Amino acid sequence: MYARSPDRAPWRRVGQDDRVTATQHVPPDVPALTIGILGGSGPQGGGLGLRLAAAGHLVLIGSRSTERGQEAAAKLAGPGRRIEGADNATVAERADVIIVAVPWEGHRETLEALRAPLAGKIVIDCVNPMGFDKGGAFGLQVPEGSAAQQAAAVLTDSTVVAAFHHVSAVLLADESVETIDTDVLVLGDDRAATDLVAALAERIPGMRGIYAGKLRNAGQVEALTANLISINRRYKAHAGLRVTDV
Amino acid sequence: MYARSPDRAPWRRVGQDDRVTATQHVPPDVPALTIGILGGSGPQGGGLGLRLAAAGHLVLIGSRSTERGQEAAAKLAGPGRRIEGADNATVAERADVIIVAVPWEGHRETLEALRAPLAGKIVIDCVNPMGFDKGGAFGLQVPEGSAAQQAAAVLTDSTVVAAFHHVSAVLLADESVETIDTDVLVLGDDRAATDLVAALAERIPGMRGIYAGKLRNAGQVEALTANLISINRRYKAHAGLRVTDV
Repeated sequence: MYARSPDRAPWRRVGQDDRVTATQHVPPDVPALTIGILGGSGPQGGGLGLRLAAAGHLVLIGSRSTERGQEAAAKLAGPGRRIEGADNATVAERADVIIVAVPWEGHRETLEALRAPLAGKIVIDCVNPMGFDKGGAFGLQVPEGSAAQQAAAVLTDSTVVAAFHHVSAVLLADESVETIDTDVLVLGDDRAATDLVAALAERIPGMRGIYAGKLRNAGQVEALTANLISINRRYKAHAGLRVTDV
Repeated sequence: MYARSPDRAPWRRVGQDDRVTATQHVPPDVPALTIGILGGSGPQGGGLGLRLAAAGHLVLIGSRSTERGQEAAAKLAGPGRRIEGADNATVAERADVIIVAVPWEGHRETLEALRAPLAGKIVIDCVNPMGFDKGGAFGLQVPEGSAAQQAAAVLTDSTVVAAFHHVSAVLLADESVETIDTDVLVLGDDRAATDLVAALAERIPGMRGIYAGKLRNAGQVEALTANLISINRRYKAHAGLRVTDV
Protein backbone atom coordinates (compact mmCIF):
# COMPACT_ATOMS: atom_id res chain seq x y z
CA MET A 1 0.00 0.00 0.00
CA TYR A 2 1.15 3.50 -0.70
CA ALA A 3 1.35 6.05 2.01
CA ARG A 4 -0.87 9.04 1.53
CA SER A 5 2.00 11.35 0.68
CA PRO A 6 1.57 12.82 -2.80
CA ASP A 7 5.29 12.30 -3.25
CA ARG A 8 4.46 8.64 -3.62
CA ALA A 9 2.02 9.18 -6.49
CA PRO A 10 4.12 7.66 -9.23
CA TRP A 11 1.75 8.23 -12.15
CA ARG A 12 2.47 11.94 -11.96
CA ARG A 13 5.24 11.67 -14.47
CA VAL A 14 6.32 15.28 -14.26
CA GLY A 15 7.46 16.63 -17.59
CA GLN A 16 6.72 13.45 -19.43
CA ASP A 17 3.96 15.01 -21.41
CA ASP A 18 1.49 17.83 -21.18
CA ARG A 19 -1.35 15.63 -20.02
CA VAL A 20 0.07 15.27 -16.56
CA THR A 21 0.47 18.34 -14.44
CA ALA A 22 3.75 19.18 -12.81
CA THR A 23 2.11 20.70 -9.77
CA GLN A 24 0.83 18.32 -7.16
CA HIS A 25 -2.19 20.36 -6.25
CA VAL A 26 -3.48 20.74 -9.79
CA PRO A 27 -5.41 17.64 -10.77
CA PRO A 28 -4.41 15.77 -13.91
CA ASP A 29 -6.24 16.50 -17.12
CA VAL A 30 -8.71 13.66 -16.75
CA PRO A 31 -10.39 14.01 -20.18
CA ALA A 32 -7.01 13.56 -21.86
CA LEU A 33 -6.18 10.28 -20.13
CA THR A 34 -5.74 7.18 -22.26
CA ILE A 35 -7.67 4.36 -20.61
CA GLY A 36 -6.58 0.76 -20.95
CA ILE A 37 -8.94 -2.09 -20.17
CA LEU A 38 -7.52 -5.50 -19.35
CA GLY A 39 -10.16 -8.05 -20.17
CA GLY A 40 -11.82 -5.56 -22.44
CA SER A 41 -13.33 -8.35 -24.50
CA GLY A 42 -15.69 -9.19 -21.63
CA PRO A 43 -19.04 -7.47 -21.07
CA GLN A 44 -18.06 -5.27 -18.11
CA GLY A 45 -14.76 -4.14 -19.58
CA GLY A 46 -16.17 -3.67 -23.05
CA GLY A 47 -19.09 -1.68 -21.76
CA LEU A 48 -16.85 0.63 -19.74
CA GLY A 49 -14.61 1.03 -22.78
CA LEU A 50 -17.56 1.98 -24.94
CA ARG A 51 -18.73 4.62 -22.50
CA LEU A 52 -15.30 6.09 -21.82
CA ALA A 53 -14.60 6.31 -25.56
CA ALA A 54 -17.96 7.99 -26.06
CA ALA A 55 -16.85 10.48 -23.40
CA GLY A 56 -13.81 11.32 -25.51
CA HIS A 57 -11.08 9.10 -24.10
CA LEU A 58 -8.73 7.09 -26.22
CA VAL A 59 -9.55 3.56 -25.05
CA LEU A 60 -7.27 0.59 -25.49
CA ILE A 61 -9.00 -2.78 -25.29
CA GLY A 62 -6.72 -5.50 -24.00
CA SER A 63 -7.16 -9.22 -24.30
CA ARG A 64 -4.98 -12.31 -24.13
CA SER A 65 -3.98 -11.98 -27.76
CA THR A 66 -3.61 -9.03 -30.10
CA GLU A 67 -6.22 -10.54 -32.40
CA ARG A 68 -8.85 -10.90 -29.67
CA GLY A 69 -8.16 -7.39 -28.47
CA GLN A 70 -8.55 -5.99 -31.97
CA GLU A 71 -11.74 -7.98 -32.56
CA ALA A 72 -13.22 -6.69 -29.31
CA ALA A 73 -12.22 -3.12 -30.19
CA ALA A 74 -13.85 -3.45 -33.61
CA LYS A 75 -17.12 -4.51 -32.01
CA LEU A 76 -17.10 -1.39 -29.86
CA ALA A 77 -16.28 0.97 -32.71
CA GLY A 78 -18.63 3.82 -33.57
CA PRO A 79 -18.78 7.40 -34.72
CA GLY A 80 -16.39 9.63 -32.81
CA ARG A 81 -15.07 6.83 -30.61
CA ARG A 82 -11.33 6.15 -30.53
CA ILE A 83 -10.98 2.50 -29.56
CA GLU A 84 -7.99 0.36 -30.33
CA GLY A 85 -7.27 -3.27 -29.48
CA ALA A 86 -4.08 -5.02 -28.44
CA ASP A 87 -2.81 -7.67 -26.08
CA ASN A 88 -2.98 -6.92 -22.37
CA ALA A 89 0.74 -6.19 -22.03
CA THR A 90 0.70 -3.58 -24.79
CA VAL A 91 -2.37 -1.96 -23.31
CA ALA A 92 -0.77 -1.88 -19.85
CA GLU A 93 2.29 -0.23 -21.37
CA ARG A 94 0.50 2.41 -23.44
CA ALA A 95 -2.37 3.49 -21.19
CA ASP A 96 -2.24 6.17 -18.51
CA VAL A 97 -4.83 4.48 -16.31
CA ILE A 98 -5.73 0.80 -16.50
CA ILE A 99 -9.02 -0.86 -15.61
CA VAL A 100 -8.76 -4.53 -14.63
CA ALA A 101 -11.89 -6.31 -15.85
CA VAL A 102 -10.59 -9.84 -16.29
CA PRO A 103 -12.43 -12.89 -14.96
CA TRP A 104 -11.70 -13.65 -11.32
CA GLU A 105 -10.26 -16.95 -12.43
CA GLY A 106 -6.85 -15.86 -13.67
CA HIS A 107 -6.93 -12.44 -11.94
CA ARG A 108 -3.75 -13.00 -9.98
CA GLU A 109 -1.87 -14.62 -12.85
CA THR A 110 -2.82 -11.88 -15.29
CA LEU A 111 -1.59 -9.17 -12.94
CA GLU A 112 1.60 -11.01 -12.01
CA ALA A 113 2.52 -11.07 -15.70
CA LEU A 114 1.92 -7.33 -16.01
CA ARG A 115 3.76 -6.01 -12.98
CA ALA A 116 6.40 -4.18 -15.02
CA PRO A 117 4.17 -2.32 -17.51
CA LEU A 118 1.69 -1.43 -14.74
CA ALA A 119 4.37 0.02 -12.46
CA GLY A 120 3.89 3.67 -11.62
CA LYS A 121 0.29 3.73 -12.83
CA ILE A 122 -3.16 3.86 -11.37
CA VAL A 123 -4.82 0.47 -11.70
CA ILE A 124 -8.59 0.32 -11.21
CA ASP A 125 -9.83 -3.10 -10.19
CA CYS A 126 -13.52 -3.76 -10.86
CA VAL A 127 -13.42 -7.54 -10.51
CA ASN A 128 -16.08 -9.26 -8.39
CA PRO A 129 -15.04 -12.70 -7.08
CA MET A 130 -18.35 -14.53 -7.32
CA GLY A 131 -19.65 -18.03 -7.19
CA PHE A 132 -22.94 -19.32 -8.53
CA ASP A 133 -25.01 -22.33 -7.57
CA LYS A 134 -28.67 -23.26 -7.62
CA GLY A 135 -29.27 -20.76 -4.83
CA GLY A 136 -27.92 -17.92 -6.95
CA ALA A 137 -24.80 -15.81 -6.64
CA PHE A 138 -22.54 -15.46 -3.63
CA GLY A 139 -19.27 -13.74 -2.86
CA LEU A 140 -16.19 -15.92 -2.83
CA GLN A 141 -13.71 -15.83 0.03
CA VAL A 142 -10.46 -14.18 -1.11
CA PRO A 143 -7.31 -14.78 0.94
CA GLU A 144 -6.21 -11.15 0.57
CA GLY A 145 -9.70 -9.92 1.53
CA SER A 146 -10.79 -8.79 -1.91
CA ALA A 147 -9.77 -8.83 -5.55
CA ALA A 148 -8.57 -5.24 -5.15
CA GLN A 149 -6.35 -6.15 -2.21
CA GLN A 150 -4.99 -9.06 -4.18
CA ALA A 151 -4.14 -6.64 -6.98
CA ALA A 152 -2.42 -4.33 -4.50
CA ALA A 153 -0.46 -7.26 -3.09
CA VAL A 154 0.74 -8.25 -6.57
CA LEU A 155 1.21 -4.77 -8.03
CA THR A 156 3.42 -3.29 -5.35
CA ASP A 157 4.67 -0.55 -7.69
CA SER A 158 1.23 0.53 -8.86
CA THR A 159 -1.52 2.45 -7.07
CA VAL A 160 -4.59 0.23 -6.91
CA VAL A 161 -8.08 1.69 -6.66
CA ALA A 162 -11.31 -0.34 -6.53
CA ALA A 163 -14.29 1.00 -8.51
CA PHE A 164 -16.97 0.25 -11.11
CA HIS A 165 -18.11 -3.00 -9.44
CA HIS A 166 -21.84 -2.49 -9.72
CA VAL A 167 -22.29 -1.00 -13.14
CA SER A 168 -24.69 -3.03 -15.24
CA ALA A 169 -22.90 -4.44 -18.30
CA VAL A 170 -26.27 -4.61 -20.04
CA LEU A 171 -26.89 -0.91 -19.60
CA LEU A 172 -23.32 0.00 -20.54
CA ALA A 173 -23.63 -1.87 -23.81
CA ASP A 174 -27.04 -0.46 -24.73
CA GLU A 175 -26.34 2.67 -26.71
CA SER A 176 -29.98 3.70 -26.46
CA VAL A 177 -29.34 4.25 -22.73
CA GLU A 178 -27.90 7.74 -22.63
CA THR A 179 -27.23 8.03 -18.93
CA ILE A 180 -26.20 5.36 -16.45
CA ASP A 181 -28.13 6.17 -13.29
CA THR A 182 -25.72 4.98 -10.61
CA ASP A 183 -23.04 6.07 -8.21
CA VAL A 184 -19.63 4.46 -8.47
CA LEU A 185 -18.11 3.55 -5.11
CA VAL A 186 -14.38 4.33 -5.24
CA LEU A 187 -12.02 2.77 -2.69
CA GLY A 188 -8.33 3.22 -2.16
CA ASP A 189 -5.57 4.33 0.14
CA ASP A 190 -4.25 7.23 -1.96
CA ARG A 191 -6.40 10.34 -1.98
CA ALA A 192 -5.14 11.72 -5.28
CA ALA A 193 -5.75 8.39 -6.98
CA THR A 194 -9.29 7.96 -5.65
CA ASP A 195 -10.05 11.56 -6.61
CA LEU A 196 -8.85 10.87 -10.13
CA VAL A 197 -10.93 7.70 -10.44
CA ALA A 198 -14.01 9.46 -9.07
CA ALA A 199 -13.51 12.15 -11.70
CA LEU A 200 -13.10 9.48 -14.37
CA ALA A 201 -16.40 7.87 -13.34
CA GLU A 202 -18.10 11.22 -13.76
CA ARG A 203 -17.03 11.33 -17.40
CA ILE A 204 -19.89 8.87 -18.03
CA PRO A 205 -23.24 10.69 -18.01
CA GLY A 206 -25.34 9.81 -14.98
CA MET A 207 -22.48 8.36 -12.96
CA ARG A 208 -21.14 9.96 -9.84
CA GLY A 209 -17.90 8.92 -8.17
CA ILE A 210 -18.18 8.54 -4.39
CA TYR A 211 -15.19 7.85 -2.17
CA ALA A 212 -16.23 4.86 -0.06
CA GLY A 213 -13.25 3.97 2.08
CA LYS A 214 -9.87 2.37 2.09
CA LEU A 215 -8.94 -0.68 0.10
CA ARG A 216 -9.39 -2.94 3.12
CA ASN A 217 -13.12 -2.24 2.84
CA ALA A 218 -13.34 -3.33 -0.81
CA GLY A 219 -14.36 -6.94 -0.13
CA GLN A 220 -17.94 -6.15 0.83
CA VAL A 221 -18.32 -3.79 -2.12
CA GLU A 222 -17.26 -6.56 -4.48
CA ALA A 223 -19.50 -9.13 -2.78
CA LEU A 224 -22.46 -6.76 -2.84
CA THR A 225 -22.70 -7.61 -6.52
CA ALA A 226 -24.33 -10.87 -5.41
CA ASN A 227 -27.06 -8.84 -3.75
CA LEU A 228 -27.57 -6.74 -6.85
CA ILE A 229 -27.93 -9.94 -8.87
CA SER A 230 -30.62 -11.08 -6.42
CA ILE A 231 -32.34 -7.71 -6.77
CA ASN A 232 -32.17 -7.93 -10.56
CA ARG A 233 -33.77 -11.35 -10.53
CA ARG A 234 -36.54 -10.43 -8.13
CA TYR A 235 -37.44 -7.09 -9.69
CA LYS A 236 -36.47 -7.73 -13.34
CA ALA A 237 -34.14 -4.76 -13.09
CA HIS A 238 -30.62 -3.62 -13.87
CA ALA A 239 -30.06 -2.30 -10.39
CA GLY A 240 -27.51 0.31 -9.45
CA LEU A 241 -26.86 2.22 -6.25
CA ARG A 242 -27.22 5.85 -5.29
CA VAL A 243 -25.77 7.17 -2.07
CA THR A 244 -28.24 9.53 -0.44
CA ASP A 245 -27.38 12.74 1.45
CA VAL A 246 -24.19 13.22 -0.59
CA MET B 1 -32.83 -22.26 7.50
CA TYR B 2 -36.49 -22.55 6.69
CA ALA B 3 -37.63 -23.89 3.38
CA ARG B 4 -39.60 -21.49 1.27
CA SER B 5 -42.89 -23.27 1.85
CA PRO B 6 -45.43 -20.99 3.47
CA ASP B 7 -46.41 -23.98 5.57
CA ARG B 8 -43.21 -23.36 7.47
CA ALA B 9 -44.07 -19.79 8.36
CA PRO B 10 -44.57 -20.32 12.07
CA TRP B 11 -45.47 -16.76 12.99
CA ARG B 12 -48.79 -17.18 11.23
CA ARG B 13 -50.50 -18.20 14.41
CA VAL B 14 -53.82 -18.90 12.83
CA GLY B 15 -56.72 -18.01 15.06
CA GLN B 16 -54.55 -16.63 17.82
CA ASP B 17 -55.80 -13.13 17.28
CA ASP B 18 -57.29 -10.96 14.61
CA ARG B 19 -53.99 -9.36 13.65
CA VAL B 20 -52.78 -12.47 11.91
CA THR B 21 -54.61 -13.71 8.90
CA ALA B 22 -55.84 -17.26 8.67
CA THR B 23 -55.23 -17.49 4.95
CA GLN B 24 -51.67 -18.04 3.89
CA HIS B 25 -51.91 -15.96 0.75
CA VAL B 26 -53.29 -12.90 2.44
CA PRO B 27 -50.46 -10.91 3.96
CA PRO B 28 -50.57 -10.21 7.69
CA ASP B 29 -51.94 -6.91 8.90
CA VAL B 30 -48.58 -5.19 9.11
CA PRO B 31 -49.77 -1.94 10.73
CA ALA B 32 -51.20 -3.94 13.64
CA LEU B 33 -47.98 -5.76 14.47
CA THR B 34 -46.41 -5.18 17.86
CA ILE B 35 -42.69 -4.59 17.32
CA GLY B 36 -40.16 -5.56 19.96
CA ILE B 37 -36.65 -4.13 19.91
CA LEU B 38 -33.88 -5.97 21.72
CA GLY B 39 -31.21 -3.46 22.56
CA GLY B 40 -33.73 -0.70 22.20
CA SER B 41 -31.76 1.50 24.56
CA GLY B 42 -29.07 1.93 21.89
CA PRO B 43 -29.20 4.58 19.16
CA GLN B 44 -30.12 2.31 16.23
CA GLY B 45 -32.77 0.35 18.10
CA GLY B 46 -34.17 3.41 19.81
CA GLY B 47 -34.36 5.32 16.55
CA LEU B 48 -36.19 2.50 14.80
CA GLY B 49 -38.54 2.22 17.77
CA LEU B 50 -39.30 5.92 17.60
CA ARG B 51 -40.13 5.77 13.90
CA LEU B 52 -42.19 2.60 14.08
CA ALA B 53 -44.17 4.01 17.01
CA ALA B 54 -44.71 7.21 15.05
CA ALA B 55 -46.05 5.00 12.24
CA GLY B 56 -48.65 3.61 14.64
CA HIS B 57 -47.07 0.41 15.93
CA LEU B 58 -47.05 -0.57 19.55
CA VAL B 59 -43.30 -0.69 20.22
CA LEU B 60 -41.71 -2.58 23.09
CA ILE B 61 -38.21 -1.42 24.00
CA GLY B 62 -36.11 -4.17 25.48
CA SER B 63 -32.96 -3.86 27.49
CA ARG B 64 -31.00 -5.98 29.94
CA SER B 65 -33.14 -4.89 32.83
CA THR B 66 -36.74 -3.79 33.15
CA GLU B 67 -35.57 -0.46 34.53
CA ARG B 68 -33.27 0.31 31.61
CA GLY B 69 -35.94 -0.71 29.13
CA GLN B 70 -38.47 1.55 30.80
CA GLU B 71 -36.02 4.44 30.95
CA ALA B 72 -35.26 4.07 27.26
CA ALA B 73 -38.96 3.89 26.42
CA ALA B 74 -39.61 7.06 28.44
CA LYS B 75 -36.97 8.94 26.43
CA LEU B 76 -38.69 7.94 23.19
CA ALA B 77 -42.17 8.89 24.37
CA GLY B 78 -44.16 11.50 22.51
CA PRO B 79 -47.66 12.48 21.38
CA GLY B 80 -49.49 9.56 19.80
CA ARG B 81 -46.62 7.13 20.25
CA ARG B 82 -47.22 3.88 22.10
CA ILE B 83 -43.84 2.85 23.48
CA GLU B 84 -43.33 0.58 26.47
CA GLY B 85 -40.16 -0.69 28.09
CA ALA B 86 -39.27 -4.03 29.60
CA ASP B 87 -36.45 -6.51 29.82
CA ASN B 88 -35.45 -8.29 26.61
CA ALA B 89 -37.13 -11.57 27.55
CA THR B 90 -40.48 -9.93 28.18
CA VAL B 91 -40.23 -8.01 24.92
CA ALA B 92 -39.35 -11.18 23.01
CA GLU B 93 -42.37 -12.87 24.54
CA ARG B 94 -44.90 -10.11 23.91
CA ALA B 95 -43.92 -8.80 20.47
CA ASP B 96 -45.09 -10.20 17.12
CA VAL B 97 -41.89 -9.26 15.31
CA ILE B 98 -38.59 -8.62 17.04
CA ILE B 99 -35.72 -6.41 15.88
CA VAL B 100 -32.28 -7.37 17.22
CA ALA B 101 -30.28 -4.18 17.74
CA VAL B 102 -27.91 -5.24 20.49
CA PRO B 103 -24.16 -4.57 20.35
CA TRP B 104 -22.22 -7.17 18.38
CA GLU B 105 -20.37 -8.00 21.57
CA GLY B 106 -22.93 -10.16 23.33
CA HIS B 107 -25.06 -10.80 20.22
CA ARG B 108 -24.79 -14.57 20.44
CA GLU B 109 -25.26 -14.73 24.20
CA THR B 110 -28.29 -12.47 24.13
CA LEU B 111 -29.99 -14.59 21.47
CA GLU B 112 -29.08 -17.89 23.12
CA ALA B 113 -30.88 -16.72 26.25
CA LEU B 114 -34.00 -15.82 24.24
CA ARG B 115 -34.42 -18.91 22.10
CA ALA B 116 -37.67 -19.94 23.75
CA PRO B 117 -39.58 -16.63 23.63
CA LEU B 118 -38.36 -15.96 20.07
CA ALA B 119 -39.49 -19.37 18.76
CA GLY B 120 -42.05 -19.17 15.99
CA LYS B 121 -41.45 -15.48 15.34
CA ILE B 122 -39.81 -13.32 12.73
CA VAL B 123 -36.55 -11.95 14.08
CA ILE B 124 -35.00 -9.04 12.21
CA ASP B 125 -31.27 -8.74 12.74
CA CYS B 126 -29.79 -5.29 12.02
CA VAL B 127 -26.47 -5.79 13.82
CA ASN B 128 -23.26 -4.76 12.06
CA PRO B 129 -20.14 -6.53 13.37
CA MET B 130 -17.62 -3.71 13.09
CA GLY B 131 -14.19 -2.89 14.31
CA PHE B 132 -12.58 0.54 14.58
CA ASP B 133 -8.95 1.59 14.59
CA LYS B 134 -7.02 4.69 13.58
CA GLY B 135 -7.76 3.84 9.94
CA GLY B 136 -11.50 4.00 10.57
CA ALA B 137 -14.17 1.31 10.54
CA PHE B 138 -13.92 -2.18 9.11
CA GLY B 139 -16.11 -5.25 9.01
CA LEU B 140 -15.24 -8.00 11.46
CA GLN B 141 -14.92 -11.60 10.37
CA VAL B 142 -17.83 -13.65 11.70
CA PRO B 143 -17.48 -17.45 11.86
CA GLU B 144 -21.06 -17.96 10.66
CA GLY B 145 -20.57 -15.45 7.82
CA SER B 146 -22.64 -12.64 9.29
CA ALA B 147 -24.49 -11.57 12.40
CA ALA B 148 -27.72 -12.59 10.72
CA GLN B 149 -26.43 -16.07 9.98
CA GLN B 150 -25.26 -16.37 13.55
CA ALA B 151 -28.76 -15.44 14.67
CA ALA B 152 -30.22 -18.08 12.36
CA ALA B 153 -27.78 -20.66 13.71
CA VAL B 154 -28.83 -19.89 17.29
CA LEU B 155 -32.54 -19.30 16.73
CA THR B 156 -33.37 -22.51 14.90
CA ASP B 157 -37.07 -22.17 15.70
CA SER B 158 -37.36 -18.57 14.51
CA THR B 159 -37.34 -17.08 11.02
CA VAL B 160 -34.40 -14.71 10.78
CA VAL B 161 -34.39 -11.80 8.35
CA ALA B 162 -31.58 -9.26 7.96
CA ALA B 163 -32.58 -5.62 7.44
CA PHE B 164 -32.17 -2.00 8.62
CA HIS B 165 -28.34 -2.13 8.64
CA HIS B 166 -27.69 1.21 6.99
CA VAL B 167 -30.25 3.49 8.52
CA SER B 168 -28.63 6.52 10.14
CA ALA B 169 -29.33 6.53 13.87
CA VAL B 170 -28.83 10.30 13.83
CA LEU B 171 -31.57 10.81 11.26
CA LEU B 172 -33.88 8.33 12.99
CA ALA B 173 -33.59 10.23 16.27
CA ASP B 174 -34.06 13.68 14.75
CA GLU B 175 -37.77 14.32 14.83
CA SER B 176 -37.36 17.33 12.55
CA VAL B 177 -36.44 14.86 9.80
CA GLU B 178 -39.83 13.79 8.46
CA THR B 179 -38.72 11.26 5.86
CA ILE B 180 -35.73 8.93 5.91
CA ASP B 181 -34.46 8.93 2.35
CA THR B 182 -33.11 5.40 2.03
CA ASP B 183 -33.89 1.93 0.83
CA VAL B 184 -33.75 -0.92 3.31
CA LEU B 185 -32.05 -4.04 1.97
CA VAL B 186 -33.97 -7.08 3.23
CA LEU B 187 -32.34 -10.51 3.20
CA GLY B 188 -33.69 -13.88 4.12
CA ASP B 189 -34.55 -17.38 3.01
CA ASP B 190 -38.31 -17.21 3.56
CA ARG B 191 -40.26 -15.21 1.02
CA ALA B 192 -43.23 -14.42 3.24
CA ALA B 193 -40.94 -13.21 6.00
CA THR B 194 -38.86 -10.96 3.74
CA ASP B 195 -42.06 -9.58 2.21
CA LEU B 196 -43.36 -8.77 5.68
CA VAL B 197 -40.14 -7.04 6.72
CA ALA B 198 -40.05 -5.04 3.48
CA ALA B 199 -43.61 -3.92 4.19
CA LEU B 200 -42.60 -3.01 7.74
CA ALA B 201 -39.73 -0.86 6.44
CA GLU B 202 -42.19 1.01 4.25
CA ARG B 203 -44.18 2.03 7.32
CA ILE B 204 -41.44 4.63 7.88
CA PRO B 205 -41.87 7.57 5.48
CA GLY B 206 -39.17 7.68 2.83
CA MET B 207 -38.02 4.12 3.32
CA ARG B 208 -38.48 1.41 0.76
CA GLY B 209 -37.94 -2.28 1.46
CA ILE B 210 -35.95 -4.07 -1.24
CA TYR B 211 -35.38 -7.82 -1.24
CA ALA B 212 -31.62 -8.23 -1.64
CA GLY B 213 -30.92 -11.94 -1.47
CA LYS B 214 -30.66 -14.90 0.81
CA LEU B 215 -29.23 -14.81 4.29
CA ARG B 216 -25.90 -16.17 3.08
CA ASN B 217 -25.40 -12.81 1.34
CA ALA B 218 -25.95 -10.76 4.50
CA GLY B 219 -22.28 -10.47 5.47
CA GLN B 220 -21.39 -7.89 2.85
CA VAL B 221 -24.51 -5.88 3.60
CA GLU B 222 -23.52 -5.68 7.25
CA ALA B 223 -19.89 -4.85 6.41
CA LEU B 224 -20.96 -2.17 3.95
CA THR B 225 -21.71 -0.06 6.99
CA ALA B 226 -17.96 0.54 7.20
CA ASN B 227 -18.10 2.09 3.75
CA LEU B 228 -21.03 4.28 4.71
CA ILE B 229 -19.05 5.48 7.73
CA SER B 230 -16.18 6.38 5.38
CA ILE B 231 -18.62 8.22 3.14
CA ASN B 232 -20.10 10.06 6.11
CA ARG B 233 -16.68 11.21 7.22
CA ARG B 234 -15.54 12.34 3.80
CA TYR B 235 -18.74 14.12 2.79
CA LYS B 236 -20.04 15.19 6.21
CA ALA B 237 -23.22 13.27 5.44
CA HIS B 238 -25.66 10.78 6.91
CA ALA B 239 -25.49 8.55 3.89
CA GLY B 240 -28.10 6.01 2.90
CA LEU B 241 -28.57 3.89 -0.18
CA ARG B 242 -31.12 3.89 -2.97
CA VAL B 243 -31.35 1.03 -5.42
CA THR B 244 -31.85 2.39 -8.93
CA ASP B 245 -34.04 0.85 -11.64
CA VAL B 246 -36.34 -0.73 -9.04
